[in-house]
Amino acid sequence: MHGGDIYRNKVHTDFSVNINPLGIPEQVREKLAEAIGQVQAYPDERCEELRERLAARYELQKENMLCGNGASELLLAISRWKRPHKALLLAPGFSGYRRALRAGDCRITHFYLRKDEEFALSAERAKELAEKLRSGGFDLFILTNPSNPTGKLTELETVRMLAKTCEEAGTVMVVDECFMELTAEPESYSMTKAFLEYSNILVLRAFTKTFAIPGIRLGYLLCKDEAVAKKIALQLPEWNVSLPAQAAGIAALEQEGYLEASRVFVKSQRAFLEKGLQKLGAKVYQSDANFLLFQWKDEELYEKLLKQGYLIRDCQDYEGLGKGYYRIAVKNRMENEMLLQTIETMQGSQKR
Amino acid sequence: MHGGDIYRNKVHTDFSVNINPLGIPEQVREKLAEAIGQVQAYPDERCEELRERLAARYELQKENMLCGNGASELLLAISRWKRPHKALLLAPGFSGYRRALRAGDCRITHFYLRKDEEFALSAERAKELAEKLRSGGFDLFILTNPSNPTGKLTELETVRMLAKTCEEAGTVMVVDECFMELTAEPESYSMTKAFLEYSNILVLRAFTKTFAIPGIRLGYLLCKDEAVAKKIALQLPEWNVSLPAQAAGIAALEQEGYLEASRVFVKSQRAFLEKGLQKLGAKVYQSDANFLLFQWKDEELYEKLLKQGYLIRDCQDYEGLGKGYYRIAVKNRMENEMLLQTIETMQGSQKR
Repeated sequence: MHGGDIYRNKVHTDFSVNINPLGIPEQVREKLAEAIGQVQAYPDERCEELRERLAARYELQKENMLCGNGASELLLAISRWKRPHKALLLAPGFSGYRRALRAGDCRITHFYLRKDEEFALSAERAKELAEKLRSGGFDLFILTNPSNPTGKLTELETVRMLAKTCEEAGTVMVVDECFMELTAEPESYSMTKAFLEYSNILVLRAFTKTFAIPGIRLGYLLCKDEAVAKKIALQLPEWNVSLPAQAAGIAALEQEGYLEASRVFVKSQRAFLEKGLQKLGAKVYQSDANFLLFQWKDEELYEKLLKQGYLIRDCQDYEGLGKGYYRIAVKNRMENEMLLQTIETMQGSQKR
Repeated sequence: MHGGDIYRNKVHTDFSVNINPLGIPEQVREKLAEAIGQVQAYPDERCEELRERLAARYELQKENMLCGNGASELLLAISRWKRPHKALLLAPGFSGYRRALRAGDCRITHFYLRKDEEFALSAERAKELAEKLRSGGFDLFILTNPSNPTGKLTELETVRMLAKTCEEAGTVMVVDECFMELTAEPESYSMTKAFLEYSNILVLRAFTKTFAIPGIRLGYLLCKDEAVAKKIALQLPEWNVSLPAQAAGIAALEQEGYLEASRVFVKSQRAFLEKGLQKLGAKVYQSDANFLLFQWKDEELYEKLLKQGYLIRDCQDYEGLGKGYYRIAVKNRMENEMLLQTIETMQGSQKR
């Protein structure tokens, strides 16, 4: 179960998928349209130009970069390369990891974050987590930063400590930063530089959410060890990244101004939604990203909003959550207002 | 090594990839352009509409259809589902199978087709092959029909006999029909109907070549056993088929007139190329598809043509072939003429 199922629901506004509320940058859209005129050719099997541009951005070599048909394909490839017997995940957390790991034979253990700590991974809790990593014999540990579903960032010092722990324990650590670029200060939290100081750390990122192109699939992986990158690549099919996706990625890497504007916009609209929801009586969890987790007294909010054409993410299938938890994307001002008004009206009609 | 590497070669005409010489059907191109306006949404994770249309075309249920990010992704997923220890391939044959199988731990055995039989799989040779299948303990057998690199069809009766043999031996058989739709009478050779009479037969097809859209990735699998289809699907990443690819596939399924025209065009242009090459002294192998394998006295034909901007497929890396074997796609009349003239001129200048 995922958000975004607009194919079997009548939806006019989709709050269930967390894509950049500013929409596709114009230049990316133009390059996509151009690429359609070129699809009589195979895509570059090696994604060479895109990997070179990515490498330049992160001050790495193209041999450190792997591109995938969405981050989900790279997760599956990591799982197949590593063939983990035991993996550690945080809960609540993204359910897609379970699917990628269960394609093999992997026992999944969860480290439960605490509701009274707003499901954040504090330095204190991270010490417990490190203890578990040291003694648990895990092959793989996935950290989502910022977290999904809360959107809360984990401090870089904490991530570094966990990376060190994984290095010592011989555990591969994947830092999933799919939503990092839409937080206010990605440089202060990201492992894209620091990961080079450790062994066995893979950093996962995606164009999908950041540039609002989920229909085109494009994710990438930063990998320090070129031999590991080659082994993971062997688990990907040939020509896995389509020609339009490669073109979109290359264009997207030039959109620094758009990204800065997005961060400012997300921050202000997130605050607007947060206040609005709190005013309506919701418990809203702290977020640094382009989405919010909240708790609501009415356990049928999902169904009721869907009847009005709004799709939100019902989080009851998240490990460690349950009924009454919902996640919404930060969208544009008008859409955010309309959602709040719709909830308010529903509430009003119940009271009468 | 594959054809189509126009990214690291200077190429004005690519004869190395076997796509429909009529190019993308106009309606497919229009739907692709439209789809670009919709990529702010995720693709349908279940590919429901496309699978329903495919099912209707083959008189099956959508549960029998699996869609992939190119046929290559489906091959990898089959390999991961089955985890074959021993696989049988024909040689010469498509090298991509080896890659899909080697992502796991699989021992590959080749059944060598004979040069003096033009590398065709005759009924006589198929009996030997069946014997090998019966005694070899293979988990997986892949038959390409028509063959790649020769383009030669195998008779349906022969394919049926091999399907029966595989059924009895407990071997999964994949019939790769990626080029079938560009042969003159696909219905007389295809297993898309007959496969229902056997267990463990998977039929693989692709939109890539048939509709000239290799830059967009789209392949599909016909699978009789719904439980098997579900297991193979678990080996695919989420949202594996992009939104434009799904739209293109749906539009392509309505292009029956285009397909008929393509078959007539391919047949006449193949005959033209065949005669032209023979006249120049090449040994041309019998083909029923949109490409030709030929042998040439000069072992540097690939390099020499590339200098002139023509990319052809050097087949020396094909198991069972060697130096001096080349494969070319059937392209449009002007391109085919230009290639023949270029070879003729090269030959003439050598003689002087």
